[in-house]
Amino acid sequence: MRIGIIGGGAVGLLTAAYFSNHYDVTVYTRRQEQAEQLCTHGLTVICGDERTTHRVHAEPFVRETNVDVLFIAVKQYDLTNILKTNMHMLRADAVMFLQNGMGHVSHLPHMPHHHIALAVVEHGALKIDDTTVSHTGVGKTKWSVWRGKKETFSFLYTTDARFPFQYVGDWETMLIEKLMVNVAINPLTALLQVPNGMLVTHAPYRQAMEQLFHEVASIFQIEQRERIWQHIETVCQQTAANRSSMLRDIEAGRMTELDAILGYVIERANERCVPAPISAFLYALMKGKQLEGETER
Amino acid sequence: MRIGIIGGGAVGLLTAAYFSNHYDVTVYTRRQEQAEQLCTHGLTVICGDERTTHRVHAEPFVRETNVDVLFIAVKQYDLTNILKTNMHMLRADAVMFLQNGMGHVSHLPHMPHHHIALAVVEHGALKIDDTTVSHTGVGKTKWSVWRGKKETFSFLYTTDARFPFQYVGDWETMLIEKLMVNVAINPLTALLQVPNGMLVTHAPYRQAMEQLFHEVASIFQIEQRERIWQHIETVCQQTAANRSSMLRDIEAGRMTELDAILGYVIERANERCVPAPISAFLYALMKGKQLEGETER
Repeated sequence: MRIGIIGGGAVGLLTAAYFSNHYDVTVYTRRQEQAEQLCTHGLTVICGDERTTHRVHAEPFVRETNVDVLFIAVKQYDLTNILKTNMHMLRADAVMFLQNGMGHVSHLPHMPHHHIALAVVEHGALKIDDTTVSHTGVGKTKWSVWRGKKETFSFLYTTDARFPFQYVGDWETMLIEKLMVNVAINPLTALLQVPNGMLVTHAPYRQAMEQLFHEVASIFQIEQRERIWQHIETVCQQTAANRSSMLRDIEAGRMTELDAILGYVIERANERCVPAPISAFLYALMKGKQLEGETER
Repeated sequence: MRIGIIGGGAVGLLTAAYFSNHYDVTVYTRRQEQAEQLCTHGLTVICGDERTTHRVHAEPFVRETNVDVLFIAVKQYDLTNILKTNMHMLRADAVMFLQNGMGHVSHLPHMPHHHIALAVVEHGALKIDDTTVSHTGVGKTKWSVWRGKKETFSFLYTTDARFPFQYVGDWETMLIEKLMVNVAINPLTALLQVPNGMLVTHAPYRQAMEQLFHEVASIFQIEQRERIWQHIETVCQQTAANRSSMLRDIEAGRMTELDAILGYVIERANERCVPAPISAFLYALMKGKQLEGETER
């Protein structure tokens, strides 16, 4: 079976590596250079003390794929470019999306593919360089079918024990819960420039996160608030020393997922005419931080 | 005429220096050491290229003063200690308060003094060491009578042209407007760790400041919003390169005026049952920053 993965970031590389032991994997990269490096040197995963190198195909993505299963592992803000292309050129029986946020869901009805799945990645992964990814936290990937047959994706269960998949019935709840985690942790850690754990060890930060959480939970009319809030606290504790991806992006002066995460929340609030003062305030502060980064460069 | 000044910080020292040319000035300090230094070396003001040294009396404050006019120039958070003492020990015909915030106003009815004035300082001043203050921005001191006769304070108009006073009729509007300026500029610059000017040069920061401003203006039922907002923007422009006192306090791990400024706003909002989500969120973030500072030390 041929597996294609669009995106040579941390999530794309991690997924490529774990499937490459059993399947014929092609990574579609944005840059020619990364594709060449991957073909030449292979793809290395660091997990604990272990370091393994995997053979993968790689080529720059030119709006065309020809595989059995296609994983789309680009950031939300790069997705629009891909979805703007002729969908029929993305030849694949099945497609799985690995994005944070929910911006991609509205594009799904326009896709011609028979089998479409959505997933959220709960692994810690850090791209070290173009051919190396560090698996910093072994978690799982939750997934759900949006269209088509669940059985099409049964191959997911053939990978390494360190890269498990877990099926969940309701894709919307799955995405919203992941969004809630990202909303609570990412912009705040990036603004305050603190590791995840500090959001729960420092009572005032915890309070601010809780205020934000309840505002967003109201916007999405979340019912099981207590359970999701506990999940967020657990994530902060389990990844206490981690610097969130948004914090790392801000520090490196890179584009962030702010629009896909907090921008999406504000859009939904506006649509539903629900006030979102804290989300809008935090969004503006983070936009300013991004602008500072751009001005400094 | 004998003038007493409680407080050896930037505002206290600046006030002492400019009155010392015409009057017999005593600075009441918190620390014995500062009083000794002031007696030995005098009080130096740096203003532009000019450096002048003034002779002043100084002694540690031990709950007692004996002067004609008393300026109270301690931070809001130190005021409680002073106002807890036997008020009759603060011997003075007239008292002038030089605080940010409005927390002190509720204590005034308990004071035995015949003439009480309130003032807000619009100078830039930076304490360099125990005997040196830099007059970084020449502005003015607005003042108003809370009780007693305006004429008692006519001596204010005898000082240097670089230390002018301006009478305003309505003390409440004066204090609230100064509070609005402090609320808009201080916590945000301290949180973002940016100089004042960036709050207007960076559009998203300006937007966040405006959101906060409107929330607080609603809490205080401010009518002339446009005028005050323009004043805030002017202050940001005129002090563009300055780091606000709260930012400097946070950087130095010192206590801040957060409670006197934003804490006061939240109290008023709670009393009036008006929502204050942005103020409460920003307050929690800044409390966390303070806690970080304390933990690091």
